[in-house]
Amino acid sequence: MPDPLRLGIAGLGTVGAGVVRILQDHAALIAGRAGRAVEIAAVSARDRGRDRGVDLSGLVWEDDPVGLARRDDVDLLVELIGGDAGPAKVAVQTALAAGKDVVTANKALLAVHGHSLAEQAEARGAVLRFEAAVAGGIPVIKTLTEALAGNEIRRVMGVMNGTCNYILTRMESAGLPYETVFAEAQALGYLEADPTLDVGGIDAAHKLALLAAIAFGTRVSFDAVEIEGIERVSIDDIRHAGDMGFVIKLLGVAQQTGRGLEQRMAPCLVPADSPLGQLPGATNMVVIEGDAAGQIVLRGAGAGQGPTASAVLSDIIEIARGLRLPTFGQPAAGLAAPVAARSAAPTPWYLRMLLVDKPGALAKVAQALGEAGVSIDRMRQYRHDEPHAPVLIVTHATTRDAIRHAVEGARASGVLVGEPVTLAIELP
Amino acid sequence: MPDPLRLGIAGLGTVGAGVVRILQDHAALIAGRAGRAVEIAAVSARDRGRDRGVDLSGLVWEDDPVGLARRDDVDLLVELIGGDAGPAKVAVQTALAAGKDVVTANKALLAVHGHSLAEQAEARGAVLRFEAAVAGGIPVIKTLTEALAGNEIRRVMGVMNGTCNYILTRMESAGLPYETVFAEAQALGYLEADPTLDVGGIDAAHKLALLAAIAFGTRVSFDAVEIEGIERVSIDDIRHAGDMGFVIKLLGVAQQTGRGLEQRMAPCLVPADSPLGQLPGATNMVVIEGDAAGQIVLRGAGAGQGPTASAVLSDIIEIARGLRLPTFGQPAAGLAAPVAARSAAPTPWYLRMLLVDKPGALAKVAQALGEAGVSIDRMRQYRHDEPHAPVLIVTHATTRDAIRHAVEGARASGVLVGEPVTLAIELP
Repeated sequence: MPDPLRLGIAGLGTVGAGVVRILQDHAALIAGRAGRAVEIAAVSARDRGRDRGVDLSGLVWEDDPVGLARRDDVDLLVELIGGDAGPAKVAVQTALAAGKDVVTANKALLAVHGHSLAEQAEARGAVLRFEAAVAGGIPVIKTLTEALAGNEIRRVMGVMNGTCNYILTRMESAGLPYETVFAEAQALGYLEADPTLDVGGIDAAHKLALLAAIAFGTRVSFDAVEIEGIERVSIDDIRHAGDMGFVIKLLGVAQQTGRGLEQRMAPCLVPADSPLGQLPGATNMVVIEGDAAGQIVLRGAGAGQGPTASAVLSDIIEIARGLRLPTFGQPAAGLAAPVAARSAAPTPWYLRMLLVDKPGALAKVAQALGEAGVSIDRMRQYRHDEPHAPVLIVTHATTRDAIRHAVEGARASGVLVGEPVTLAIELP
Repeated sequence: MPDPLRLGIAGLGTVGAGVVRILQDHAALIAGRAGRAVEIAAVSARDRGRDRGVDLSGLVWEDDPVGLARRDDVDLLVELIGGDAGPAKVAVQTALAAGKDVVTANKALLAVHGHSLAEQAEARGAVLRFEAAVAGGIPVIKTLTEALAGNEIRRVMGVMNGTCNYILTRMESAGLPYETVFAEAQALGYLEADPTLDVGGIDAAHKLALLAAIAFGTRVSFDAVEIEGIERVSIDDIRHAGDMGFVIKLLGVAQQTGRGLEQRMAPCLVPADSPLGQLPGATNMVVIEGDAAGQIVLRGAGAGQGPTASAVLSDIIEIARGLRLPTFGQPAAGLAAPVAARSAAPTPWYLRMLLVDKPGALAKVAQALGEAGVSIDRMRQYRHDEPHAPVLIVTHATTRDAIRHAVEGARASGVLVGEPVTLAIELP
């Protein structure tokens, strides 16, 4: 049997402790599958004394992750500190500079600095893998990079923030407004210290940027993701969407359009009877469409100690087995600079507007849509007691620009009350 | 760039033509991802003249696949002939004996001869991969072997025969009996030449045996799979199951029980609101439960030219990239001989029986269940015009032996009319 693979584990939070636990509990299983032992050479973490629920006795500690990355007896750095700067970044750079392989769960680091880190890794003959950075235990990086390597990818879609999906699912099932469920989620400890990372769509957008780079062979470009969070999703829209057979999800979509690479993370309507529409609670789902494979749907736990540690182990064992892939599935030098699409591919849209309750108001809206080139698939005007008439419209596929023109036209005609809600509908 | 990987493709049916098409259409994409060109050195097929919808001009032909496997300019044999004996087997053995790698879509060959072929491959330093043999384009072999390599696998479940799922889904949605939908499927060309392979559960059982071997580190043992087809699933049971919130699927289940490895492929009830219950038409789904990752659900097209060819390419590119895994994820010598479980792990059961319409009949059934140690979760007696009373029972988790005893007891008490229907309920 070859020499053991010797790990340096930087960061012993929830995920780090989970990785240690799996390596301890499944040492023989992993050695059998990897063809060699996988050992912990040393670890680093801020607090040596904290009880992490795993046996840390006998482990060698380093004071800082950079020192850990430099150790001669560390072949592979496992970076589980997090953050797109600071010690995580320096430790990864130090390991790569020394030609050591790196496995990380750090979506922010990869989404922001992924291209330069990939270049650095390849220049030094090192491997940098990050399965755990996207959708926890679901093997979405492996599926895109390896299983679908013979496919031209058409589209990647995903619900990749479990907290947002929990909030939206709970709003729908309990009929509660956003603020109430947000407070519940915060009390349950579901939210990041900075909740904007979750509900603002940033965490999920990091993940989408990574998937897009692999899927479309472009340099990872987080700045080019259009991001809208779930803070403005109302219980009214969830109900109305449900009446029309849709569910609202915080959905990431990446696809090549005729005019560039589209990457957007935003609340969208999806059909209630589709796999995405049926996704409950804190679960994640990624849908990948290949030209040969068709649609592959992957579903599972997107976070948590076990699932994330499982993904970290997947990368470690891949390296132990001798698979040495470029970071984004092909050499960094071959990744094109992405041309951000100026507008998204056409989709159907959901519009909700309040109209003044006067004869001809609806006709003026219909006229504004027609003049903007937007054709109506379905429309409902609800019975109302208030002075204003709520109207729902589902359009045929059209661009966001056309939707904006239509709304401007309706506003100019003086029949709109307040700001209309416009949400894209993403069909499977 | 390293030397090209030179393929010999044996068999140019639907899948073989699909592989040729992808290699032609995506040559640059594949070379970029694999780090080397992938070329077709030569092909073999029975009929040179048939129009396969792809450009075969310029290809070197061999008369028989064994000659193809022997060619000096073939590094990797792609076996797409099929069948667990005959030329497919000899060609694979010839390639492996020469130390050449093999990629195959042949579930029957692997399910029956997988262990000896794995031993032969490893003895010669060759690689034998078979992603396309299970669930078409869904990367289930890769997920089990690689993504979940850090997990002890708890259970693998799957709907892995699209034809059976089409038949059962169509029976349910159209309210048609089995015979009618079977005839429809045959007319549509959905069935194998020998339809027993599909509706008898054999094809799906081949796949289950392969997954079980990888998941549980045992020698592949198709003979140990308990197989029951869908031929006796009645529209009545589909309706009654639906009334109770269940759907009937041809479901494969593999798990380690306290008493050995359970492998069964049989019609089962699953909750209608579970991912398996919501699986429509000819789609496939595999559910894998790992101790760390939790439940991973994979869904996609389980057959067809594009999806199956995509899986073949996944294996080819994996080898081109230098990943050299043992056939079943760990060395064949380390695979334990499976101890077939004498009985399945306890599950809830669905029972449908007709009772003579006499006072006390139901009490006698309830007594028989109680004496067999079977406890009742739900029971329904339907209104009836016939002289016999239809009764549905959903039990709490119990063994099949206990269910048999209960049915024998009810029969002995003289209240049963005809043969009761007993189907296991598999919970997610």
